[in-house]
Amino acid sequence: MELSTIYQPIREDLIKVEDKLRSVSRVDSPWLSDLISYSLRGGGKGIRPAFVLLSGKFYDYDLHYLLPMATAVELLHVATLVHDDAIDKSPIRRSRPTLYNVWGEAKAVLLGDYLFAKAGELTATTQNLRAVKLFAQTLRTISTGELSQIFSAFSLEQTYEQYIQRISYKTAALFSLAMESGSVLSQAPEESIKVLEDYGHNIGIAFQIVDDILDFIGTEEELGKPIGSDLAQGTLTLPAMLLLERYPEDNPVKKLFQNPDEQENVKLAIEVIRNSSISEECYAIASDYCTKACYNLNLLPDSPSRQTLIELANFVINRKR
Amino acid sequence: MELSTIYQPIREDLIKVEDKLRSVSRVDSPWLSDLISYSLRGGGKGIRPAFVLLSGKFYDYDLHYLLPMATAVELLHVATLVHDDAIDKSPIRRSRPTLYNVWGEAKAVLLGDYLFAKAGELTATTQNLRAVKLFAQTLRTISTGELSQIFSAFSLEQTYEQYIQRISYKTAALFSLAMESGSVLSQAPEESIKVLEDYGHNIGIAFQIVDDILDFIGTEEELGKPIGSDLAQGTLTLPAMLLLERYPEDNPVKKLFQNPDEQENVKLAIEVIRNSSISEECYAIASDYCTKACYNLNLLPDSPSRQTLIELANFVINRKR
Repeated sequence: MELSTIYQPIREDLIKVEDKLRSVSRVDSPWLSDLISYSLRGGGKGIRPAFVLLSGKFYDYDLHYLLPMATAVELLHVATLVHDDAIDKSPIRRSRPTLYNVWGEAKAVLLGDYLFAKAGELTATTQNLRAVKLFAQTLRTISTGELSQIFSAFSLEQTYEQYIQRISYKTAALFSLAMESGSVLSQAPEESIKVLEDYGHNIGIAFQIVDDILDFIGTEEELGKPIGSDLAQGTLTLPAMLLLERYPEDNPVKKLFQNPDEQENVKLAIEVIRNSSISEECYAIASDYCTKACYNLNLLPDSPSRQTLIELANFVINRKR
Repeated sequence: MELSTIYQPIREDLIKVEDKLRSVSRVDSPWLSDLISYSLRGGGKGIRPAFVLLSGKFYDYDLHYLLPMATAVELLHVATLVHDDAIDKSPIRRSRPTLYNVWGEAKAVLLGDYLFAKAGELTATTQNLRAVKLFAQTLRTISTGELSQIFSAFSLEQTYEQYIQRISYKTAALFSLAMESGSVLSQAPEESIKVLEDYGHNIGIAFQIVDDILDFIGTEEELGKPIGSDLAQGTLTLPAMLLLERYPEDNPVKKLFQNPDEQENVKLAIEVIRNSSISEECYAIASDYCTKACYNLNLLPDSPSRQTLIELANFVINRKR
């Protein structure tokens, strides 16, 4: 199912989020306006703001609070991408030059800071201290996850549990924030907030596992960036982990991690993974997380949102980019 | 007067801020704890947290709110320094290797993000939405100021007004935040909040002007970093501006900005400025800001804090580092 079809119940409100995002770049200085617009023009899937709105649909759906929160969640996402690209020196994302590539590192770092701040300001306009705290905690969790990824680069001593914790920090935390803040701002009871936050957490884990699979089996055209870039940078993701398990001795991942200069091993690893059942195994794990995500949704009041959340879980698994 | 003498009325509470700062580095991951401790061990002057406490002293001085805010303001300051050093590739600050120098750029960027987030969390524990909004606005203002500095690097088309606005954004905003948040959290009436915030703004401008003077007339030992580094990076500060005005034709600043590679002009500019009355002129301007800062303090209720704020204004002018 296409995203545009899935988004139908919140279509108009997502357009309002886009308007609100565009208004962020309306500032006095033309150079700042250019930077902000460029960072926002990437054309993401808008899945995170959609989660804020969908989570809010179960209870007191008040756009006055949900719109700034949805916008803040997307801005936080964009800011982390801008910083990630500067850190990884990534030239391209979603088929276009990264802000780092066009404007350089210093401006990318400072624009990321600017967007964090703007997201914080928008969150504060919800007048909800719990949402504000969640927002700040999430930024801290994401930074911790990214730092942990760098500290464990090219290390072969990583367990499956450590991998799940790392992606839970660097990716799933933002999905949890989207779902939890949406429900908190809609006066949901605590049990429902827990159900919706759990959904966000599990979907986020599944989302990152699929990202990690696509980095091996996707195409450059679909992904809009080079294949195998995680491995090239020494990030051990689930498919590479399973490859290591399967061939503990003669293994391209092992060779690469022992000699990071021997980048030809990236291509080799991609080949071996594509010619094995590893991606199916990874998809099975991601699917389990999606199932877990949806498991308790029936505890919530009846709402068209529930069906949309289930469809989004399927989308997360089946997406090609 | 020594800072330790000036701080006497808030000495014990500043020690509590230091304890709270130290507790920020108490986290599970040893690698993260090391990074945080290193960033905090710089041993700054603690002037920003002091301002939060001093501002609070005029009204309902409640450490339950003032301590986390004072800690947040210092963390925000440290985070911006960590990012600045990564952006400028500065090897040394306060006579020790920068975090960027020891751990590299990626970790410096992410640790800065982590500290922004932690500062935001601490601000949220004040339960005061106005303080939260001020905090986020200030981070945005600082980022805008830093971006503006980069966009205007090596440009000779800069007015005095633009310089003042730039330092108002990149430096004075944080002093304003310190004073305003301290008074807001102490239930000060609006007129008093305005007086204290104005003090912060004017002292912040004076502080940065003195910084900019010291970058030309200080010694490397006192400053703990190379002299002339602003100019070397193309930042046009007040002393360099006055030098341009005085010798519009044959001028080392003009030559440097036209040919950034000709770095020998930095030394020349330092020499000419040291052998002129330019630094005295700059000090006179900074002093005016300090006078303006203190001008309305007598509108506030009687408190030992008032005398301390006046002493701090003098300290800002007379400091050597």
